Amino acid sequence: MRGMRALGLGVIGFGVVGRGFASLFLRRRDLLEEAFGRPVRVVGISDVARGNAFDERGLDLERCLRAAESGVDLGEATGAGGLPGMELASHPAVDVVIDLTPTNLSDGEPGYSHLRRALESGKHAITTNKGPIALRYGELKELACSRGLHLKFEGTVMSGTPVLEMAQRELAGSHIESVRGILNGTTNYVLTRMEEGLSYAEALREAQRLGYAEADPTADVEGFDALAKALILSHVIFGAGLRPEEVPRKGISGLSHETVEEAHSQGKRYKLLVEVSREGGSVRASVAPTLVGPEEMLYHVRGVENAISFRTETLGEVFVKGPGAGATATAQAVLHDLLSLARDLRGR
Amino acid sequence: MRGMRALGLGVIGFGVVGRGFASLFLRRRDLLEEAFGRPVRVVGISDVARGNAFDERGLDLERCLRAAESGVDLGEATGAGGLPGMELASHPAVDVVIDLTPTNLSDGEPGYSHLRRALESGKHAITTNKGPIALRYGELKELACSRGLHLKFEGTVMSGTPVLEMAQRELAGSHIESVRGILNGTTNYVLTRMEEGLSYAEALREAQRLGYAEADPTADVEGFDALAKALILSHVIFGAGLRPEEVPRKGISGLSHETVEEAHSQGKRYKLLVEVSREGGSVRASVAPTLVGPEEMLYHVRGVENAISFRTETLGEVFVKGPGAGATATAQAVLHDLLSLARDLRGR
Repeated sequence: MRGMRALGLGVIGFGVVGRGFASLFLRRRDLLEEAFGRPVRVVGISDVARGNAFDERGLDLERCLRAAESGVDLGEATGAGGLPGMELASHPAVDVVIDLTPTNLSDGEPGYSHLRRALESGKHAITTNKGPIALRYGELKELACSRGLHLKFEGTVMSGTPVLEMAQRELAGSHIESVRGILNGTTNYVLTRMEEGLSYAEALREAQRLGYAEADPTADVEGFDALAKALILSHVIFGAGLRPEEVPRKGISGLSHETVEEAHSQGKRYKLLVEVSREGGSVRASVAPTLVGPEEMLYHVRGVENAISFRTETLGEVFVKGPGAGATATAQAVLHDLLSLARDLRGR
Repeated sequence: MRGMRALGLGVIGFGVVGRGFASLFLRRRDLLEEAFGRPVRVVGISDVARGNAFDERGLDLERCLRAAESGVDLGEATGAGGLPGMELASHPAVDVVIDLTPTNLSDGEPGYSHLRRALESGKHAITTNKGPIALRYGELKELACSRGLHLKFEGTVMSGTPVLEMAQRELAGSHIESVRGILNGTTNYVLTRMEEGLSYAEALREAQRLGYAEADPTADVEGFDALAKALILSHVIFGAGLRPEEVPRKGISGLSHETVEEAHSQGKRYKLLVEVSREGGSVRASVAPTLVGPEEMLYHVRGVENAISFRTETLGEVFVKGPGAGATATAQAVLHDLLSLARDLRGR
């Protein structure tokens, strides 16, 4: 493959997921190059906190990883001064923009602008950021389609557990009627520990200590993260352009230890469920703590694990459980999307 | 799409699965024609017991279904005399051969010859028959590749629950290290009922009465069906050319009610597990009743349901549960393979 023009990747966001991807890229580079049929290089990394590095010949990712781990600016560490995200997203040496910035559910920024700029500049786009897909999927999808480009976001729901492409591709023709899922690991962990006797506050503190919950746990415990996933599922499975205000949302912060105990005494468990269904011509979605009995597989999903149950016409229930977060699992989603893009481009 | 040359399907085998496919085809024809970008027609059906029908302009499937249900010969009922399977498999009007003949694990016939003839005649091939894939996958795959043709067989493991393409495509790059699955619904039903108090003989008779077990239950209860699936998984996930005699196989007929009860009293259950794993440079597979505890999702799979657990490097465990048999669920596998073929041919 020497002599062929390399495929250039531009990575925006070098936090836990970005570093997870760099690390996985180093281990799976051969697989990617075989899939694309040409050399594949990360030519740029941009991070508002960690600095920017850019080298058309390909960055030394091990050096970038060491720099980020030790708090050294990426540009300084590599001697390869870089470009801010918006410039990287439109640079001619970049063929695929990989946006790994944090989710923001008020306006989808900065991910939205990165993806839009990428697509407008003729580049394929991959993201793990829920914001732009939950809030502005229709617009981004249309932009991608109109230019013959690909927009991929497997990591936005259940990280690398490949439920989105499974729903769209492998279950095609099965007529998915509804989905029910545990799509937020933090709240499932808290609920699991409450069933084991902890109070809500104790369980939440433990989740924070273990790194499962943020210092400000609002996005998880109030159901905003689950809401984003409900929106994404409504878009990609049901083609519905639901808006956040159309989805009833209830988190777990109002659940008392007594309520959880009472459910337990009846042989049931509260799970924070995302539900999306087609009813007649319309699509409905909701996020709420829901009583689930042991006859449902969702009942048996413990701790930070995620799971989804598809109800279909031809297969009845298809249930998938897997990780919903984590650096390597989310990096796997990006790897999945790159391999999927390679097949799209090569017609396989 | 009028005026375009139609895509011709040749269906061999018109038993429960063949009729399920014909019925699903009638309901999903639009989806198929959109995917292939041209009209799609079933031009021939061949069944050694029910007769043969052939019409280049497309058969009247509703008439074929009525004939088969009422025991009338297909050729007579349609007035469109047909071709035996081997001739249909090489007829110029057929573009895709769909082999839905019964599984035979001694030599893979007649499915093997149908698939081989199809591929040698330049046709894509789809099958739900485990025999040829379990026993002669390497040879058939090589033949397909050498001619630029596609060979698809999603329905051979867990019917339409799309675990094979999930393993090969959606989990690509995750490095699957091992799989563990409940891949035979009949034995899982019998074991479930034995846990509920029935003897082996009683549970088996009930399974036979409900149509879950054959009059001769050997293939299920002695683990031959599970063995075929172990071989198929070893081929497609691990690229291993394992032969049946290399896979230790133990069925459930030797399990006494007392043994099952004793497991139950320890909070465990016996499941007939297929296990395939890569260890060092070699691949090992086995079929055996195995004690499983409630911490594993497989423990919670009851009745005729099937499930598989993939252990991967990047995602840890990914678990999928769904139907493992049934006319519509297996027809869905054929629909899946056709839609997958359409994407392959159109480069998506």
